[in-house]
Amino acid sequence: MATVKSIEYAEASAEVRAVYDDIMATRKTDRVNNFWKALASHPPTLRRTWESIKQVMSAGSLDALTKELIYLAVSVTNQCSYCIASHTAAARKAGMTNAIFGELIAVVGMANETNSLASAYQVEIDERFRIQP
Amino acid sequence: MATVKSIEYAEASAEVRAVYDDIMATRKTDRVNNFWKALASHPPTLRRTWESIKQVMSAGSLDALTKELIYLAVSVTNQCSYCIASHTAAARKAGMTNAIFGELIAVVGMANETNSLASAYQVEIDERFRIQP
Amino acid sequence: MATVKSIEYAEASAEVRAVYDDIMATRKTDRVNNFWKALASHPPTLRRTWESIKQVMSAGSLDALTKELIYLAVSVTNQCSYCIASHTAAARKAGMTNAIFGELIAVVGMANETNSLASAYQVEIDERFRIQP
Amino acid sequence: MATVKSIEYAEASAEVRAVYDDIMATRKTDRVNNFWKALASHPPTLRRTWESIKQVMSAGSLDALTKELIYLAVSVTNQCSYCIASHTAAARKAGMTNAIFGELIAVVGMANETNSLASAYQVEIDERFRIQP
Amino acid sequence: MATVKSIEYAEASAEVRAVYDDIMATRKTDRVNNFWKALASHPPTLRRTWESIKQVMSAGSLDALTKELIYLAVSVTNQCSYCIASHTAAARKAGMTNAIFGELIAVVGMANETNSLASAYQVEIDERFRIQP
Amino acid sequence: MATVKSIEYAEASAEVRAVYDDIMATRKTDRVNNFWKALASHPPTLRRTWESIKQVMSAGSLDALTKELIYLAVSVTNQCSYCIASHTAAARKAGMTNAIFGELIAVVGMANETNSLASAYQVEIDERFRIQP
Repeated sequence: MATVKSIEYAEASAEVRAVYDDIMATRKTDRVNNFWKALASHPPTLRRTWESIKQVMSAGSLDALTKELIYLAVSVTNQCSYCIASHTAAARKAGMTNAIFGELIAVVGMANETNSLASAYQVEIDERFRIQP
Repeated sequence: MATVKSIEYAEASAEVRAVYDDIMATRKTDRVNNFWKALASHPPTLRRTWESIKQVMSAGSLDALTKELIYLAVSVTNQCSYCIASHTAAARKAGMTNAIFGELIAVVGMANETNSLASAYQVEIDERFRIQP
Repeated sequence: MATVKSIEYAEASAEVRAVYDDIMATRKTDRVNNFWKALASHPPTLRRTWESIKQVMSAGSLDALTKELIYLAVSVTNQCSYCIASHTAAARKAGMTNAIFGELIAVVGMANETNSLASAYQVEIDERFRIQP
Repeated sequence: MATVKSIEYAEASAEVRAVYDDIMATRKTDRVNNFWKALASHPPTLRRTWESIKQVMSAGSLDALTKELIYLAVSVTNQCSYCIASHTAAARKAGMTNAIFGELIAVVGMANETNSLASAYQVEIDERFRIQP
Repeated sequence: MATVKSIEYAEASAEVRAVYDDIMATRKTDRVNNFWKALASHPPTLRRTWESIKQVMSAGSLDALTKELIYLAVSVTNQCSYCIASHTAAARKAGMTNAIFGELIAVVGMANETNSLASAYQVEIDERFRIQP
Repeated sequence: MATVKSIEYAEASAEVRAVYDDIMATRKTDRVNNFWKALASHPPTLRRTWESIKQVMSAGSLDALTKELIYLAVSVTNQCSYCIASHTAAARKAGMTNAIFGELIAVVGMANETNSLASAYQVEIDERFRIQP
C-alpha cells in the first residue's frame, strides 16, 4: 500500500485535474496510472515531473521505443518493481517484441556484470577514451 | 591504478592471446582495452566474459547502437567511471551523435528521478501491468 | 516472509529482552518492530545495531526530524521497502507534515536525477570544491 | 576529463547564456559550475534541469540547509564524487557546521547499514506502517 | 507476477529441456526454480547464464559455501528480493548455519555503512594500497 | 582530496589517540589508514565505527579471510573505490591469493548479472524459499 493517499480524478483539485487531462490526452487513454495519483499528493511535483517526462520521452533523435528501452534498463538496474512493471508495459505498447525484450535484458545483465568486473579491478581508463569530441 | 597486474600481449599465455586475437579481429582494431588486460589476470573470467559480450552485443533484434545505448544507460546508473568512458566511446563508434547522447542522458536522468519517486511513495503496481504477455 | 525466525518477547533470551525493554522505554511504546525481532536471530547484531541507532538518531546538532528525513532519503535512494515504510512512519511521528514529505521526495528525486547527469558526463570536480575546511 | 565538451560563457548560445545568467543571479556568484557547463552540451536538459533545481531547492516547508543535507545524503548513498564535492560545498554555504556534517554522515552510514539488514532478513512490513495518512 | 511467461518443462522446446535437464542433474533435484523458467523466455540467455553459473559457482580455490555467501552478500547489497530468498536457501543447503548467517549479515551491514563513510568524506586512497601485486 | 581535514596522530585529541592506539595494536601495524583519519573529524563516529568493525570482523563462525572476501564483494557492488582498494589489500594480508581473487570477482560479477535478470523479469519467489528455518 502506498505511503500517501492516492488522489482520484473525482476528488482532485483543478490544478491536478489539468495534469491528469493532459496525461490522458497525450497518451490517448482514459486512465491515469497509480504513479501519477501518488504524485498528486504534492501537486508541484506532479506537474513538474509530468512536464519533464512529456518533453524527455517524446520522439526526437531517438524514437519512442528506444527511449522506453533505455528507461527500462535503468529501472532494472535500480531494481524498482513499479518502474519495471509499468515500463515493460509501455515498451510493449511502443513496439517491444518478446525477442527485443530478451535481448534488452541480456544486455542489461551483461552490463551489470562487466560494471562489477571493471570496478573490482579498478581498471584505469584508457587514454583514448578521455579525448573529448 | 588497477588492483591486479595488467597482462600485455607480449607476456600473455597462449590461452590469453587467443582471446586478445579474437577481440582485435572482431572489433577490427589492433589494440586491447585495459579492461581485458585486467581480466586476463584470471583467464577463465577473461574467456567467459568475452564470449558472452560477443554474443550479447552483436546485432540481433536490436541493432548495435541501441545495445550500446542500453549498456551506457546501465553504466551511468551504476556510476561506473570506466564503463561510462569506454562505452561512450563505443557508442560514438557505433553512430551515437551529440544529439543522441544528449537525449539518452536526459532519459537516464529522468528514469533515475522517477524511480525514486515511485519507490518513495511505495506506489502499488496497477492491475493491468501485471498481465503476462 | 522473513528468511529468519522472528523472536517474540515471550520466547526471547534475557539478553534479547534487555534490548527490547530499552527500545520500548526509549521510544515510549509497548511494541517492538519486526526489524528488531528479525535482528534478534543474531543477538550481537541486535545489541550493537540498537546501541548505534540510539546514539546516532538522538537529537544533537541536528534535530530528530531532520535525522529522520535524512534516513528516509537514503532508504528511498536504496529502494528499501521496509525502510521506506518504517521511516516514513517515524518521520511523521517526529513531525513530518504532508507538505514536508512532498518537498523531501522532490529533493530526493532531483538529487537522483542530477547524480546521473554528473556521472554521465563525467564532470570534473571544480577546483574550489576541493579545498578542505 | 568530461566526456562532453564544456561550454564556456564566451562561446555559449543566447539560450545557454540566459540560463547561465539566471544561475549566477539566483546564486549571487559570478561563476558557473562545471556541472552546468557540461549540461550545456544539450541545451534542453540544461534549461529543464536548472528550472527544476531552482524550484525544488528553494526554501519552502523545508529550509535551504535541510534540503542541501538531504541532497548530500542521496549523493553519498549513490557514491557520486562530483555530487558529494559540490553539495558538501553548497551545504557549508547554507550553514552546515563540522558538527552537523559529522552527524549527517553518521545517520547516512547507519541508514545504509540498517537498509542492508532489513533487506537481508526480508523483514515483513509491520501492519501499522501500512496505514495511509 | 512475472513480466514474462514462465516456461514449464512440459511445454519447453528441446533446447530449453536440455538446460533444465542439466540443471536438475547438476543440482541433484527434480525441480527447476522460477528463475530459470523466466529466463527460458529467451533461450540464448537461459543457456549462457546457466553455463556461466555452473562454471563460476563450482568449487575451485573457494569452496561452494564461501561462493554462496559472496553471492548472498551481493544480493543483499542490491536489495534483490528473489536473489536473497533463493541464495539464502542455496547457502543453507551448502552448509550455512544460523550462526554463519548472522555473522555474514553483520559483515554486509558494516561494509555498507563504511562504504558510505568512505565516500562521504571522499577519503583518498592510501599510497600503499595502490601497489600492484 | 577529502572533504574533511584528516587528523594526524600528533594533533589528535586524547579520545582520538586512544582509538588510533587500539587500531594499531589490534592490527599489529604502526600506521593508521586515511579512512580513520577522516572519521576522526567526528570522534563519536570514529569510536563507534571502530568498535563495530573490530567486533564484526574478528574471526567467529566465519574466519577472517571469508569476512574480508564478503566485505570486498559488497564494496565492488557499491563501486566504492576507496573500499575496494583498502579491502583488496586487507584480504591479501588475510591470505587471499590471486586465484581466490579471480574466483571472488567472477562470483561477484555473476551475482550482479543474475540479480538484474531476476529483477528484470520480476520473478516470483518460489514457495519453498519462503519457509523459515
